[in-house]
Amino acid sequence: MKFVCDGLSLSEAVMKVSKACAVRSTAPVMECIKISADNDEVVFLASDGELSIQKTVKAEVFESGEICVPGKLFSDFVSKLTGEEISINTSDKGMEIRYRDSGTSMQTIRAEEFPKIDLEIGENYFEMKQNDLKKIISETTFCCAQDDARPVLKGCLMEFGDKLEMTALDGYRLALSEAKILSKSGEKSLICPARTLGEISRMLTGEEEEITLYNKGGLLMVKSDGMIVVSRLYQGDFIKKENVLPSRFTTNVTFDKNELIASVERAAILIRGDKNNLITLEIENDGVNVSSASEIGNVAERVSAETDGVELNISMNAKYLLDALRALEEEKITISFNGAVSPFILQNAEKKESLYLILPVRNAA
Amino acid sequence: MKFVCDGLSLSEAVMKVSKACAVRSTAPVMECIKISADNDEVVFLASDGELSIQKTVKAEVFESGEICVPGKLFSDFVSKLTGEEISINTSDKGMEIRYRDSGTSMQTIRAEEFPKIDLEIGENYFEMKQNDLKKIISETTFCCAQDDARPVLKGCLMEFGDKLEMTALDGYRLALSEAKILSKSGEKSLICPARTLGEISRMLTGEEEEITLYNKGGLLMVKSDGMIVVSRLYQGDFIKKENVLPSRFTTNVTFDKNELIASVERAAILIRGDKNNLITLEIENDGVNVSSASEIGNVAERVSAETDGVELNISMNAKYLLDALRALEEEKITISFNGAVSPFILQNAEKKESLYLILPVRNAA
Repeated sequence: MKFVCDGLSLSEAVMKVSKACAVRSTAPVMECIKISADNDEVVFLASDGELSIQKTVKAEVFESGEICVPGKLFSDFVSKLTGEEISINTSDKGMEIRYRDSGTSMQTIRAEEFPKIDLEIGENYFEMKQNDLKKIISETTFCCAQDDARPVLKGCLMEFGDKLEMTALDGYRLALSEAKILSKSGEKSLICPARTLGEISRMLTGEEEEITLYNKGGLLMVKSDGMIVVSRLYQGDFIKKENVLPSRFTTNVTFDKNELIASVERAAILIRGDKNNLITLEIENDGVNVSSASEIGNVAERVSAETDGVELNISMNAKYLLDALRALEEEKITISFNGAVSPFILQNAEKKESLYLILPVRNAA
Repeated sequence: MKFVCDGLSLSEAVMKVSKACAVRSTAPVMECIKISADNDEVVFLASDGELSIQKTVKAEVFESGEICVPGKLFSDFVSKLTGEEISINTSDKGMEIRYRDSGTSMQTIRAEEFPKIDLEIGENYFEMKQNDLKKIISETTFCCAQDDARPVLKGCLMEFGDKLEMTALDGYRLALSEAKILSKSGEKSLICPARTLGEISRMLTGEEEEITLYNKGGLLMVKSDGMIVVSRLYQGDFIKKENVLPSRFTTNVTFDKNELIASVERAAILIRGDKNNLITLEIENDGVNVSSASEIGNVAERVSAETDGVELNISMNAKYLLDALRALEEEKITISFNGAVSPFILQNAEKKESLYLILPVRNAA
């Protein structure tokens, strides 16, 4: 294998692909990037078994061939060569990277050891705008579970119907958001790892441009600008959101979002060390009291609000409340309650395209 | 105690002072900020026993008094209140912070438990320009030892003579830099903790303005803009730099600094996991080869240079070389050697106000 290309496009491609390299694998080849040169194109491919990323760049190919090199090392190294013209060729000593009067050699692994990755995924497709997809990803994935207790909860449920409905939950809270679909092959429900969605979001640089998601069996694929992301999907049962979302509420309160965030942030400082991270909202007809208390002190703040319905006193994890408030877009937001022990939901006051549900904590006091 | 002041100046003062709070102390009062209100001024003071910082702000004092509050907590809390007018008063329940319709109470410790800090330090003084002091601090402190094996090496030797000479060393490398003194009470040698110097550097916001360092016994004091920093000095013997610095060299090599940095950075990537972090410079008459090798590969780069003297082959820790190169200011820098096993020094090619000495590593090859 031998090719010449410019350092900047090489570095950009390798950096993107290296996100899919396994970090500490028992099989060293999973930490590698596979490089394939042929027909004036060089293809970089990495995969950790769950997520695979491939990127193709133009190059002057003198001798076609394939090889695997350590991904992180290669990525860090070429990131220091963005201004050079780079010549890469394989020899007995491994792979040589030459630039100006200088050169580097790196150990390699034979391309045959790299796992076969199926990139021909086209049974179902769903087309949407890039910024719609990015928005729905950023509005939901932060509510996915972080631990492996129930692996399926580390993903988002994507329901492709008339529109795309995306649900994330971790057992204490739920996020639900929807986005327009431009065209599709049919209806489908998939559970996609949050990590994959993050990488897809990062690869999308357009706004109004379209992007198509392809699905076949347990795989999802997205293609954009010479780059392909393929991910395994999670299999299993996701909670039915219809069973969780209340249809009516006894109290609706509309807040100025930033005023409420500032108040909850202050209340959260005093309870930082506490396990439950508990703050209390006391909903009154003419306003809301935000309070927290711990060994070291207590906060009691008055926040203006428009209340409709019965008064109540409800406690919750301050982090969940802040995460949801920060994810909502509008200046005015509405929180709807059903008493002190039932889940409550947060939405923009006007455009209710996304929704957050949080379980309250029974207040011991 | 009762006073009213604006949140921004309160927050700025408390944040600066809190840098001197002890982090995990067996005596809770050492993690506190002592607040003293009297005569339209409020004084904030924190000390961990080594470093003490005091800051005075204007306030409307209704009742004079003193109290100690948890430093980190108080600092984080008031940083969220920069837009408010804040009223602070002590009661049986601790200290109350009131703003708008809201309020917080915090646990306190009696002011009598806070250690006495001597701020009357004026036996010797040394006056210099603020930017000269900041420059000499940034040029030396990064070479101080990080561990406690020889505590004195966690400080810089400050020799106040015709000028200020500052030396830092960690057993493998040495930094030496000098700055002008505008006026002084006499000659003096002090060893000041690197951490204190960092805090002093951060408190200096001026450029051409003057700043005075005061010394009495084992203490150093700096005053600027309502803020006072007092630090214990280290006692002990510092290496005599005259015994370490070579007076003549057998090889002098002048490099383009950025070209050498880029090359060493690339060579350092391949040896990242290695304990010795070893790169080799092969000094030839018409240029220099930079190389490194590890299990995973090797780099050999050619860097242009003007060589004067005998050729040689010398190995060193890539991090020490990079730290020194990055600290030098000029585009052209000179490295001077005395063979492969003697210390070598790095300086700007023209203005030789600062100097770095590094011990080479004997190359096993």
